[in-house]
Amino acid sequence: MRTRFQQGLDDLKANLLEMGGLAESVIEAAAEGYSRRDAAACQIVFGREKAINDAERHIDGIAVDLLAMQQPMASDLRFILAVLKINADLERVGDQAVNIAQRAIDLISGPVLDIPVDVPRMTTAVSTMVRRALESFISANTEVAEAVLQMDNVVDRMKDEAFVTLVKVMEKDPANIRYYLDALLVTRNLERIADHATNIAEDVIFWVRGDDVRHGQGLAKSAELTDEIDKYKSH
Amino acid sequence: MRTRFQQGLDDLKANLLEMGGLAESVIEAAAEGYSRRDAAACQIVFGREKAINDAERHIDGIAVDLLAMQQPMASDLRFILAVLKINADLERVGDQAVNIAQRAIDLISGPVLDIPVDVPRMTTAVSTMVRRALESFISANTEVAEAVLQMDNVVDRMKDEAFVTLVKVMEKDPANIRYYLDALLVTRNLERIADHATNIAEDVIFWVRGDDVRHGQGLAKSAELTDEIDKYKSH
Repeated sequence: MRTRFQQGLDDLKANLLEMGGLAESVIEAAAEGYSRRDAAACQIVFGREKAINDAERHIDGIAVDLLAMQQPMASDLRFILAVLKINADLERVGDQAVNIAQRAIDLISGPVLDIPVDVPRMTTAVSTMVRRALESFISANTEVAEAVLQMDNVVDRMKDEAFVTLVKVMEKDPANIRYYLDALLVTRNLERIADHATNIAEDVIFWVRGDDVRHGQGLAKSAELTDEIDKYKSH
Repeated sequence: MRTRFQQGLDDLKANLLEMGGLAESVIEAAAEGYSRRDAAACQIVFGREKAINDAERHIDGIAVDLLAMQQPMASDLRFILAVLKINADLERVGDQAVNIAQRAIDLISGPVLDIPVDVPRMTTAVSTMVRRALESFISANTEVAEAVLQMDNVVDRMKDEAFVTLVKVMEKDPANIRYYLDALLVTRNLERIADHATNIAEDVIFWVRGDDVRHGQGLAKSAELTDEIDKYKSH
């Protein structure tokens, strides 16, 4: 029989996954808004901002209640703290999607230009990172989380390449600099989403292993923690 | 007599303030690096990145230990959670300072240009926001925290004005677009620091009032909380 505390943890997890789904959906809609010059897709992003903010507050509330309810064991404590951090990152992913949609609206207001930056490819990479980071959380799988960390370098490189390419295009076509800047800022918003996915993956590793991988330094592992992970894996 | 737990809270607060000082120092150094074309100032920023990362990990460790040590009262719990959030924001302020210093290094590598964006003025506004946000935390003063939230609009406007100005300059002088982009990205880094200051101010309000002001919705206040705040004010 599950205790009320354990049910609370399950509830927390389910809510966070729902929040993750919302965050993924707005990345996709914002990228479509940009790539297909689709103002309706942008409106979907603006429309879901409130739902994401509400979900963040709701999840924070559950987490704080669980912390206040009883003294959690070490691994439960780490789990709840990881959820609080992941929750904040997902909300910021939503903010980035809103920024992308705003740039897309500006782009749509201008002439149709040939912008030599593969935003859809970059979006695919970034969405994959977010999805994988959440998968690593669901399955307590640090290998998947490690893979997310690796992908961040790829996205960084894409962003740097886009910068060089866009500077050249702006030099040749200064009349449309404003719209090339929209593209440039979108690549930076995508790169920030990749950073949030990286943060989530690091939080998962911290929770599962008790390691703080953020700046290459580890904390002690505990056998108790490993037992707890097995419990979560079977959730 | 202070209990071990209360001493832990004091220690946590002292460490966070030191972290705040570090974060303020790198904002200043990065802005000097940019405004005075001073590569040595940029190196100071790069040199302090590790100290900031170490401080973040140290503070996280103290906070997690305190949460694990005993069941904190509602207000202590909120205080520790606020510290965890503020800590993460300060670390990200450090990241933004590093980004500014990197743009400054690129700018220094190019010709001396007349860039019509008042970065020092914007830096002053942003630094003030960070300092005030930390002051509001020290004094548990929500009025100061509210003032920080107001200042964010001013910084946003500065960022938008800089964008319009820089697009015009780029159109006129496309050969130096790369360097004007450095300036544009610096204004965006500063605006992100302002966002972090805003987050800190919101966390202070949440801690003190028990209000979640992030998206305009409040939680219940408690008399117990108010008593606790008086205790912290006298720290």
